[in-house]
Amino acid sequence: MVGIQAARVSSVAQEAIDRCRVLAELSEEPGFTTRTFLSEPMRRVHARLRDWMVQAGMSVSTDNAGNLRGCYAADSEPARRLWIGSHLDTVPRAGAFDGVLGVVLGVALVELLAGRRMAFHIEVIGFSEEEGVRFGVPFIGSRALVGDADAELLARQDPAGTSIREAIAGFGLDPSRISERQLGKDALGYLEFHIEQGPLLEILNLPLGVVEAIAGQSRLELTFKGQANHAGTTPMALRRDALTGASEWIGAVERDACAVTGLVATVGRAEVSPGAGNVIAGTVRASLDVRHSDDVVRHAAVTRLLQCAEQIATRRGLTVSWERRLDQSAVAMDEDTTRILDRAVANAGFPVHRMISGAGHDAMIVARSMPAAMLFLRSPGGVSHHPDETVLAADVAAALNSGMRFLEELETRRV
Amino acid sequence: MVGIQAARVSSVAQEAIDRCRVLAELSEEPGFTTRTFLSEPMRRVHARLRDWMVQAGMSVSTDNAGNLRGCYAADSEPARRLWIGSHLDTVPRAGAFDGVLGVVLGVALVELLAGRRMAFHIEVIGFSEEEGVRFGVPFIGSRALVGDADAELLARQDPAGTSIREAIAGFGLDPSRISERQLGKDALGYLEFHIEQGPLLEILNLPLGVVEAIAGQSRLELTFKGQANHAGTTPMALRRDALTGASEWIGAVERDACAVTGLVATVGRAEVSPGAGNVIAGTVRASLDVRHSDDVVRHAAVTRLLQCAEQIATRRGLTVSWERRLDQSAVAMDEDTTRILDRAVANAGFPVHRMISGAGHDAMIVARSMPAAMLFLRSPGGVSHHPDETVLAADVAAALNSGMRFLEELETRRV
Repeated sequence: MVGIQAARVSSVAQEAIDRCRVLAELSEEPGFTTRTFLSEPMRRVHARLRDWMVQAGMSVSTDNAGNLRGCYAADSEPARRLWIGSHLDTVPRAGAFDGVLGVVLGVALVELLAGRRMAFHIEVIGFSEEEGVRFGVPFIGSRALVGDADAELLARQDPAGTSIREAIAGFGLDPSRISERQLGKDALGYLEFHIEQGPLLEILNLPLGVVEAIAGQSRLELTFKGQANHAGTTPMALRRDALTGASEWIGAVERDACAVTGLVATVGRAEVSPGAGNVIAGTVRASLDVRHSDDVVRHAAVTRLLQCAEQIATRRGLTVSWERRLDQSAVAMDEDTTRILDRAVANAGFPVHRMISGAGHDAMIVARSMPAAMLFLRSPGGVSHHPDETVLAADVAAALNSGMRFLEELETRRV
Repeated sequence: MVGIQAARVSSVAQEAIDRCRVLAELSEEPGFTTRTFLSEPMRRVHARLRDWMVQAGMSVSTDNAGNLRGCYAADSEPARRLWIGSHLDTVPRAGAFDGVLGVVLGVALVELLAGRRMAFHIEVIGFSEEEGVRFGVPFIGSRALVGDADAELLARQDPAGTSIREAIAGFGLDPSRISERQLGKDALGYLEFHIEQGPLLEILNLPLGVVEAIAGQSRLELTFKGQANHAGTTPMALRRDALTGASEWIGAVERDACAVTGLVATVGRAEVSPGAGNVIAGTVRASLDVRHSDDVVRHAAVTRLLQCAEQIATRRGLTVSWERRLDQSAVAMDEDTTRILDRAVANAGFPVHRMISGAGHDAMIVARSMPAAMLFLRSPGGVSHHPDETVLAADVAAALNSGMRFLEELETRRV
């Protein structure tokens, strides 16, 4: 590994960025990057990646969940298998790096090996779906890999009435054989490179962050009900204004989250009804999104915020009710593998910064079935899910250097 | 007047309520009361009212603004003219009493005169339009009466592209002659009976309220802009959340209005964008409606609330901008005529309670051209603009008794 020149890594890093830009052109929507589960442009993404994988000495196939898989064989059999991957689908009008970068960097690492074989197979996997856009359910690709693509999932329909099963068949794959190529007992671990999609690394002036957990998430919908009434004829003291009540609560949500380290709580949607300027609001429906790496902390926060909503409603003569829409536990990355990643980052010459991912990633699904680790790359401006999303070439080189040290460390262990 | 039996007034009051209920059946929408400017059901409203007016001894016509006018001649000529009226149009899915009651009570008063002629003409006017529903502009009928139905008003179009001029012609009237029957120099004054559309009289356990002014009104639209961002990856301290900023301001609006006697300030509409549960709000557009009987107080409040919005925005790294949509001055009722109304209410045996109307009424337009007075009837539950809107028969009788004393007082003055 010592033999790899910095110039070579820089060149491969720049090529990885260029490749992400090339793939971003393959879109359902001209002028933007929009690529949902097994849509037509995904065929061309697979074709480009297949070429690059083959050039790097990998054997390539597509499994029946639509995951693109490139295997770089170990120096001898039997051998265990290291997985490196991320997803190939995008949100509508996405950037060029969310997901795709993690796949392209897997291929780039194999290229940097320059034909050298390791003690373990390296399988680079481009998951077919992670964002949940087309079918309203995320992680289709990684769920299939870990054997969780059940009949209920396959029956799910997109807004056009096409099921996941039909979409897979339409892509020329066989949904009835989706479980055939799920993860084997040879799994050594999983490594995912991903852009941070947040501002923290930039603020800390760090290229990389080692993810130690993916935050758990609660999503709820609250409904505040008061009394719609005439804005001119109803004195302030006699109002039961659902919007002033909801506003008081939104302020309390913010204060509560600010007071607890690592907690984020967001009201991102609020619908006011009847919603006329001269009518006091009768009803407000508001979303609540709460995340923390510790499920106990998160559940306690949700309980507090709901109690707070009830207190505000009672004091104001309103009612409040809620529905729980999601309660997703936090997922820890594998401690041993993450420590190897720490060392790899340090040996590559970069500060080791542990962090929590506030967003969900394929790694949280894969972590159910094998040791998973995740490396964040700085997101300039914290921008993601937007055409302006980008990465710095030096950060990509840092990730590649760290990735090579990670492979080296695993090799040293002769796993 | 002393000769009118309480039983007779009660009976006429009940009949007035019944008549309002009959007219409420005449609607553009089966099962609801919806009647906009010169729509087809207005013909049947005119026909029914015309019958009742003729029975009461009035001569009836429709002017070229679509106002129904019933004249009960004075005992001799020349004579001045007392106007009694309100509007015949409704909001969508309205109640049976908003507007219509004031016209029906004018007819009822003439009936109670039982053929006796006064020293002044009584002209009962059912304005064609007050709510502003069809053309987005209110007071078409009363503006025509006071000579303010200009070419710009007549050119206004409804969503179907029909102008007010065309709607008038389509009803069989002549819009080019709209100014011919505007208010003459003989005007003695204007009296409008109207439901309160608010809760105050009910809370005070009073049947009637004497309106001394119609509050001025400011309407604005504010736009708070921050930065839309990922709800999971953006720490609380790094957010520029337009919704938490707008919420803080909505709370401040409420506290400010509560602190100033007679001030009402309402945020009735708030649109959050992008409006997804897992995305921090980037933009909030919010309405602001501020009303007070004193324009100085109202303008000072608007200035304070905008300064407050700017302070909150600056502190939070947001921007805020606004558009002023309406700045309508307060309109005082005529002091002399209002004192006569006070005495009439007192002489009829009811407490005199002066109040401010928070809603606009035809009286505020008419007040530009003649002395206007206005009497509110209690709104049970404060409910209005809703099918549940109602009145108490005893309150209607109280209004009729007070109205008769009002006529008597004017007669005594031999105006």
